[in-house]
Amino acid sequence: MTTLKIAFQGEHGAFSEMAALDFFGKAAQAIPCKDFETVFAAVTRQEVPYGVLPVENTLGGSIHRNYDLLLRNNLFIIGEVQVKVCHQLIAMPGVTLDQINKVYSHPQALAQCEHSVTKLLPQVERIPVYDTAGSIKMIKEEQITDGAGLASEHAANIYDMQILQRDMQDDDENYTRFMVVAPEAVIPTGEAKTSIVFSVNNIPGALFKSLAVFALRDIDLTKIESRPLQGKRWQYFFYIDFIGSQHEERCQNALRHLQEITTYFRVLGSYPRGV
Amino acid sequence: MTTLKIAFQGEHGAFSEMAALDFFGKAAQAIPCKDFETVFAAVTRQEVPYGVLPVENTLGGSIHRNYDLLLRNNLFIIGEVQVKVCHQLIAMPGVTLDQINKVYSHPQALAQCEHSVTKLLPQVERIPVYDTAGSIKMIKEEQITDGAGLASEHAANIYDMQILQRDMQDDDENYTRFMVVAPEAVIPTGEAKTSIVFSVNNIPGALFKSLAVFALRDIDLTKIESRPLQGKRWQYFFYIDFIGSQHEERCQNALRHLQEITTYFRVLGSYPRGV
Repeated sequence: MTTLKIAFQGEHGAFSEMAALDFFGKAAQAIPCKDFETVFAAVTRQEVPYGVLPVENTLGGSIHRNYDLLLRNNLFIIGEVQVKVCHQLIAMPGVTLDQINKVYSHPQALAQCEHSVTKLLPQVERIPVYDTAGSIKMIKEEQITDGAGLASEHAANIYDMQILQRDMQDDDENYTRFMVVAPEAVIPTGEAKTSIVFSVNNIPGALFKSLAVFALRDIDLTKIESRPLQGKRWQYFFYIDFIGSQHEERCQNALRHLQEITTYFRVLGSYPRGV
Repeated sequence: MTTLKIAFQGEHGAFSEMAALDFFGKAAQAIPCKDFETVFAAVTRQEVPYGVLPVENTLGGSIHRNYDLLLRNNLFIIGEVQVKVCHQLIAMPGVTLDQINKVYSHPQALAQCEHSVTKLLPQVERIPVYDTAGSIKMIKEEQITDGAGLASEHAANIYDMQILQRDMQDDDENYTRFMVVAPEAVIPTGEAKTSIVFSVNNIPGALFKSLAVFALRDIDLTKIESRPLQGKRWQYFFYIDFIGSQHEERCQNALRHLQEITTYFRVLGSYPRGV
């Protein structure tokens, strides 16, 4: 039996790896990639069958880069998964809290733990690094004993490190939603979601008319995102997620109706709705 | 006569400073601030009467941080201004192109000049710094002779530096739109634009109904942006710009209608439309 390989951005122990293993099961093998582009490329070149990429966080909002990369690549969204983001303060084994002068993590994680860190370590210096799990890997490799990192419990386990303090996130309602991408589309069973991207002529009411095709058929939108349309000043691509599958007649009618008014239209995928 | 002071983010020579002087005239004095928060704070505490902040770029999209800061602060948008972004390759006087091993600039500027830089200097190392104009200031202060920066012509002039190569941007359709903020709202004359922010209950068709209040009155939307509603998973604030003033009856009716369905609603300002 071959192990299922999944590309993700970051180091082992990253929240993206947790999302991948949550979706595909613990037997899958998550393959670290240095950036989002590399994840898209690995799946496109069929070096791995799937990639897992963050699309939005409840505190930070959308990861716009991945919306842009969806458009540039020809992959399909075949699933979604949500991960609760809990940041642990992690240090070398044996190190105690009073030894910590520096806290390392991704800038977003440092921001999400700002108050907890100040309360626990008022004088600490915050040092941004490229990845949450990467900060733990670095502390281990460089044997740093006066610093700690903010990352997942999973990262602490992988690198055999010590959790000094649990749940450092200031806001507990901290979730990241990930998409699973593949070269081929799937036909979802059960409750489905569909992601599309389109552009419309820059005329009054164009977006309203686009949303009407869903509202008139009682199709529920869960997300709208706009991104600049390169080369057309102050015009936009719209990304919409809605409840339903492109294989349902009601949704097919809505999408056919939408294409009457779009200048660009693409279905990024229909997939089982994540919970 | 007192000089009019305008807060902006970045170093002297930044595109934000150009936007400020474009809007208020060359006699105004632009005050550099280290980050966007400081600009909002300087205007809120009335240390300066106005602030100028980027809201979106035709290539990079919205500057989401400033949308979030608009919501957190109680300032009004009183104007907008567009600046064409042209990046010049700038070095110490006397330095020639064949001496350049390093190019410094803000990561977005490096990305926007990727192909031009590769074509001109195939082996060059790219070094990200916090600000476009800041890269020129640094090259001058540290007397770097094997490096060049990417910044505005204005930055080259301010620091008495030399332009090695003009118009390094790969895509010429590169514009940034800035907003002008102040503690008091204005009543615009001439063609006006209005910016609002609101949230709606998470029910099917809620966004469609929100846009209907404008479409039903032929009010043209120029921009929609969504940001996460903190503490409510996968719910959003919507930011909308439309053509018209909140002092016109038609727009007043639309905004009154909108408030029938919003859970949060705020007018960020009506102001003269920038060209």
